[in-house]
Amino acid sequence: MFKKFTTTTTLAFVACFAALAQEPVNNAAVQKIRTEGLEKSKAMEIAYKITDVAGPRLSNSPGLKRAQDWAVKYFNEIGLKNVHLEAWGDFGKGWQVDKYYAATTKPFYRPIIGYPKAWTPGTNGPIKSEVILIKADTVTDLNKYKGKLAGKIVMIESVAIQPLKNSYTPDVVRYTDEKLAEMAAQQPAAEGQGNRPQRSGNNQMAMMMRMRQNRAAINEALLQENVGLILTYARGSYGTFFTSNGASYALDAKPVSPELEISAEDYLHVLRLLRGGEKVEIEADIKTSFYNDDPKGYNVVGEIPGTDPKLKSEIVMIGGHFDSWHAGTGATDNAAGSTVMIEAMRILKAIDFKPKRTIRIALWSSEEQGLFGSRGYVKQHFADPATMAVKPEHEKLSAYYNLDNGTGTIRGVYLQGNAAVKDIFQSWLNPFEDLGAKTITIGNTGGTDHLAFDAVGLPGFQFIQDPMDYNTRTHHSNQDTYDRLVEDDLKKSATIVASFVYHTSERAQKIPRKEMPKPAPARQ
Amino acid sequence: MFKKFTTTTTLAFVACFAALAQEPVNNAAVQKIRTEGLEKSKAMEIAYKITDVAGPRLSNSPGLKRAQDWAVKYFNEIGLKNVHLEAWGDFGKGWQVDKYYAATTKPFYRPIIGYPKAWTPGTNGPIKSEVILIKADTVTDLNKYKGKLAGKIVMIESVAIQPLKNSYTPDVVRYTDEKLAEMAAQQPAAEGQGNRPQRSGNNQMAMMMRMRQNRAAINEALLQENVGLILTYARGSYGTFFTSNGASYALDAKPVSPELEISAEDYLHVLRLLRGGEKVEIEADIKTSFYNDDPKGYNVVGEIPGTDPKLKSEIVMIGGHFDSWHAGTGATDNAAGSTVMIEAMRILKAIDFKPKRTIRIALWSSEEQGLFGSRGYVKQHFADPATMAVKPEHEKLSAYYNLDNGTGTIRGVYLQGNAAVKDIFQSWLNPFEDLGAKTITIGNTGGTDHLAFDAVGLPGFQFIQDPMDYNTRTHHSNQDTYDRLVEDDLKKSATIVASFVYHTSERAQKIPRKEMPKPAPARQ
Repeated sequence: MFKKFTTTTTLAFVACFAALAQEPVNNAAVQKIRTEGLEKSKAMEIAYKITDVAGPRLSNSPGLKRAQDWAVKYFNEIGLKNVHLEAWGDFGKGWQVDKYYAATTKPFYRPIIGYPKAWTPGTNGPIKSEVILIKADTVTDLNKYKGKLAGKIVMIESVAIQPLKNSYTPDVVRYTDEKLAEMAAQQPAAEGQGNRPQRSGNNQMAMMMRMRQNRAAINEALLQENVGLILTYARGSYGTFFTSNGASYALDAKPVSPELEISAEDYLHVLRLLRGGEKVEIEADIKTSFYNDDPKGYNVVGEIPGTDPKLKSEIVMIGGHFDSWHAGTGATDNAAGSTVMIEAMRILKAIDFKPKRTIRIALWSSEEQGLFGSRGYVKQHFADPATMAVKPEHEKLSAYYNLDNGTGTIRGVYLQGNAAVKDIFQSWLNPFEDLGAKTITIGNTGGTDHLAFDAVGLPGFQFIQDPMDYNTRTHHSNQDTYDRLVEDDLKKSATIVASFVYHTSERAQKIPRKEMPKPAPARQ
Repeated sequence: MFKKFTTTTTLAFVACFAALAQEPVNNAAVQKIRTEGLEKSKAMEIAYKITDVAGPRLSNSPGLKRAQDWAVKYFNEIGLKNVHLEAWGDFGKGWQVDKYYAATTKPFYRPIIGYPKAWTPGTNGPIKSEVILIKADTVTDLNKYKGKLAGKIVMIESVAIQPLKNSYTPDVVRYTDEKLAEMAAQQPAAEGQGNRPQRSGNNQMAMMMRMRQNRAAINEALLQENVGLILTYARGSYGTFFTSNGASYALDAKPVSPELEISAEDYLHVLRLLRGGEKVEIEADIKTSFYNDDPKGYNVVGEIPGTDPKLKSEIVMIGGHFDSWHAGTGATDNAAGSTVMIEAMRILKAIDFKPKRTIRIALWSSEEQGLFGSRGYVKQHFADPATMAVKPEHEKLSAYYNLDNGTGTIRGVYLQGNAAVKDIFQSWLNPFEDLGAKTITIGNTGGTDHLAFDAVGLPGFQFIQDPMDYNTRTHHSNQDTYDRLVEDDLKKSATIVASFVYHTSERAQKIPRKEMPKPAPARQ
């Protein structure tokens, strides 16, 4: 009893002390935001427009343009200001699939689940051919096929292709309390270690490089042979497959052969038959279109203007990339993040918030090709990471918040090594502990647009999100559709983001920054 | 210490007593079978021929005939005798898909994962149409569409169609020790209760009946309107969908409209768009063929003849159904069971086993339409369940062992209420405890061909098998392919079956029987 009493006293004292030191939270505002975000959400309506209606949103494709046009309209509808499409630089060609048909016709009829690799040409009408299994480790091994491949459908033998293995774990998961505690306990990285991505060993890198070069040389030789269609193994299982890029989107890109990624099951079926000496015949009809009329890339931008005379020139930014891959409708990557950010803006407008600082949303494009939209924007507005020469807006940005890890609800924030914001964010998360958002980790997360800001010394953050089926089923797959979006998760995330934006806007000071990084010359 | 000693003594005494009462096991034979089955397995080669090479094996389809012809050849190759295709009665039409193409073309292009319902006609060339969402609870509600549906692609609105839900459990599972213990502890059913399938309540039955009748009336009316194609929701997710039957296979079946089952994702996409007021256009090109030349159904039969003068007229049977649904290659349903049974025969031939009783394998057809192959065989050879009039062979059959629950390895046996075989099977399982097979349950399992034997008072058993992804991903799905077969599981199962067959053949007496059931007039 005494012991318990002592503990309670100590805890009460600590709590009190912490409260004094705590970043203020406007509980009335939080309550309004919660009511609007959790009870009057438009998240699913927004997501429906981006996925079901606009469709896949590959960079510079008609699908992305449809979605961007809708976003401009919607931003205006909810009362954002300075709504515009803003060119971030030159991207290249748009591309889309107009027809996809492929089926095995011998030894028996079976339709093939697959899709053309992005930016590859079609088959120029229906083709039907025996499938030839090319055995070539290097391009010289191809000599034996000379003159035999014109119009043929080919598959390239590789030891890297292995049978599918069963997974005994769920496809959809949420972070456990244990896992979150582990993330929270992470130590800050040593100086200069924080932002470096893990690299494979030199040997492995060299081998991968060699394999890629060989494959490129083989593909070049196959083009010379005027091959009809290349079949490529797509990762995935049970009808889910993950897509990728098959050619350059540059306006002056060299021509490539038609190349089709097919589901693991269909690929392995054909491969087993060919290895087993059976004759396999496939028919296909693939049509794709290129769009060269406007090679520029665009972001969609809109604002809630600031109202405080001293602070309205300062900016709080939120965003997520709007572009996607082509075989799904880019629901979790990244209609989800886009939806949450748009909905956060809508919530703030709906509660009639007049922010001190200007709140700006940007829906990036060409994230999938290398964060081009956000990097281009950062270079134009804030600083060039190659020189670290800063522009006047650099000192005006308080923080940038990003969302791009699927439909999973926000469970906390990655500090991206910026220890000075820990207590601020912890306070801002406190009102959302009941929604499962409570974890701060000093750690980094990569792969998306907050890095463009972080690279020039601006506070850019990505939230911790429940993994769900992002890594197992949806990230770049044909199954990244509206069905994967969990309404409850999107609602919670939008509510939390709106509150973060609210408090960032109203805060006396801007969000603390890390030291300016050293110039990083472009890696071209 | 004393206590422990006492316990040990007691256990030793019990074990000794049990050993005296135990059914004999020929350990030398078990060792030979294990060596052949586990170390020299041909299971995957057999399965490859049935799935990858022969393809889908819908009853009376060319695929089933290819597989049956291969089985006859293979039975002869491994030295079985009396190998033949045996007609079990009249089935009806064969059917197969010759072309499947469907895609959403408005609001954007997206190929549709789906497949024609079995025994439905094609589209008679390419069609392209706006999709019409039919809102009709009864056939009279259809009046408003009169004259508007010719050549159109339609979808029927239904409250039964719900959004997909996330599953937080693994697709692939094995039985835990706890679950197996629970199955082992099951009590025998009360007299007359054992074999009755669970039925839904009368209200629910009546509602389902009404819905089915309405749907049938609506489909009939749509046919009169000369509708172009009906789109139907197929259960499943992430690119996996489960197929079903769309029309009668009777030679004199009434015509039906073309009907396409499409993946949940594709169906829900179109449905959300139509409910949202968007215009949806779909193009499709479906060709199917019917085969009326030989309406008879066949089983594949082969034997290892008995060698004991007194016992060779007695029979031990094993089998599994060889037919499948049409969208996959019927790998787990039931190339797996067929493979295990064929491999068990091969093992017994390979160890040069000269059985006392005759060992017979049967690969059934038309299991999927109602166990027709096994029921027809049982009626011709053993007894008519409608009258219980038995034939001379009835007293000659010792037991029938069946396998039809996927790729999962054998974990034990369902006694099907036959308590008298418990100790026999327990002894026969003992040498396979290290393979995870040790559980005996008094319980029944249904849905497959051992029921045909059980129905006429013959000992028919299905083994307990690890569930794997059978219920979640493969059973009747487009993803039931070779990839789902686990070599290790098939090897173990074949080894265990071969040993069961060995011991059943060599046993002094036939396997004990339950009481003869009462005549059960056909339910036509």
